[in-house]
Amino acid sequence: LVSVLSSAIIVYRLPWTWKCSKLLMKFIHAGLNTIAMILAIVSMVAVFEYHNARNIPNMYSLHSWIGLTAVIFYSLQLFLGFAVFLLPFAPVPLRAALMPIHVYSGLTIFATVIATALMGITEKLIFSLKNPAYSASPPEATFVNCLGLLLVIFGALILWMASRSHWKRPPEENAKVLRPIGGTPEGTEAESTMTDGSNADKSDLRINSEAARKQNLKLDEAGQRSTM
Amino acid sequence: LVSVLSSAIIVYRLPWTWKCSKLLMKFIHAGLNTIAMILAIVSMVAVFEYHNARNIPNMYSLHSWIGLTAVIFYSLQLFLGFAVFLLPFAPVPLRAALMPIHVYSGLTIFATVIATALMGITEKLIFSLKNPAYSASPPEATFVNCLGLLLVIFGALILWMASRSHWKRPPEENAKVLRPIGGTPEGTEAESTMTDGSNADKSDLRINSEAARKQNLKLDEAGQRSTM
Repeated sequence: LVSVLSSAIIVYRLPWTWKCSKLLMKFIHAGLNTIAMILAIVSMVAVFEYHNARNIPNMYSLHSWIGLTAVIFYSLQLFLGFAVFLLPFAPVPLRAALMPIHVYSGLTIFATVIATALMGITEKLIFSLKNPAYSASPPEATFVNCLGLLLVIFGALILWMASRSHWKRPPEENAKVLRPIGGTPEGTEAESTMTDGSNADKSDLRINSEAARKQNLKLDEAGQRSTM
Repeated sequence: LVSVLSSAIIVYRLPWTWKCSKLLMKFIHAGLNTIAMILAIVSMVAVFEYHNARNIPNMYSLHSWIGLTAVIFYSLQLFLGFAVFLLPFAPVPLRAALMPIHVYSGLTIFATVIATALMGITEKLIFSLKNPAYSASPPEATFVNCLGLLLVIFGALILWMASRSHWKRPPEENAKVLRPIGGTPEGTEAESTMTDGSNADKSDLRINSEAARKQNLKLDEAGQRSTM
């Protein structure tokens, strides 16, 4: 589950995929996330059946609460992602506005899933290791602790890859045609102030650089991410 | 600990602090992080003494492994932060290069600390609730689960605040003077191509927007964050 989720997150960040069309990348991203969702549902059903078969109460632990919260938000994320970014009906400004939220909530859900996995590992080690107990550090405990530590390192690497701006997928050919739609009217305005920025005074320079920053954010979001 | 850490993270993101000098903000950020570090050390000493007094082995659980890893990286982060960003010796390009790493590792350590807290809560609930057990969902279990869920929501809010670009502290007056130092030579080059971007062809437009994006990242980092 975590590996499929991670693949879905970093699929836009792999330089060898930058040559694929944006639509193909979107389908891969959506497909991988759908697989991850199916795996999450299958594993939840398995847990409930295991609990019922062994007369263990369901949903009592913090692990289960946070895990269920993550799955609910993940299904919302998947539904909104399909409706806004995959289906061709949503206008570009709406996509541009929702993209930062989509990216933030995707990464936050990913981090929450890792935290849930760590809590699940902790629970499982405490409940399963009885003779010798977890606290006696048998080889299984050390081994699984190492796996947990690797999970944290892996999650940190994925978040690093996903948050580097120079690993962003470069804009496509057709993105340029759509760009003015996302960037007007402030975009044009900011560009014109940028042009005569060299002979402006101090306070103008400040306004220019702020406008340019805002404009760039707009261009980045509208042009690079939200166009088809 | 988590609340002091969070205050240290979002201190640059509070609009009412944007009027304070950058140096004062840095001292507040460094001071809050130092308090958090002291709290972390005090709590670790308390845990070791509690374990020794009760003859519980130390450092056997995944919680302790990940917690110790986080504290080690946090002390590294604190040391590097003091050496590079607070002491006046590091040159601006070095600060600009290290700032994204400093921000990323700070936020990753914060998320790891929350995951460690959640594992600690899980352990404590399993070990402390015996009659009725954790699985019987006594009121304490529900209450502490709610606290854990609130901790996740709180952490997600802090990460949202810390990752919004429009909540970034605006550049200072003196930052403008220093800007050309961080941005040459690509910065000037990108600005000149930006100026005649309106009558360029498609492929030129693409190069311009990429150059502008790179230049802006450079400006943002050098001007907004890394100058004194």
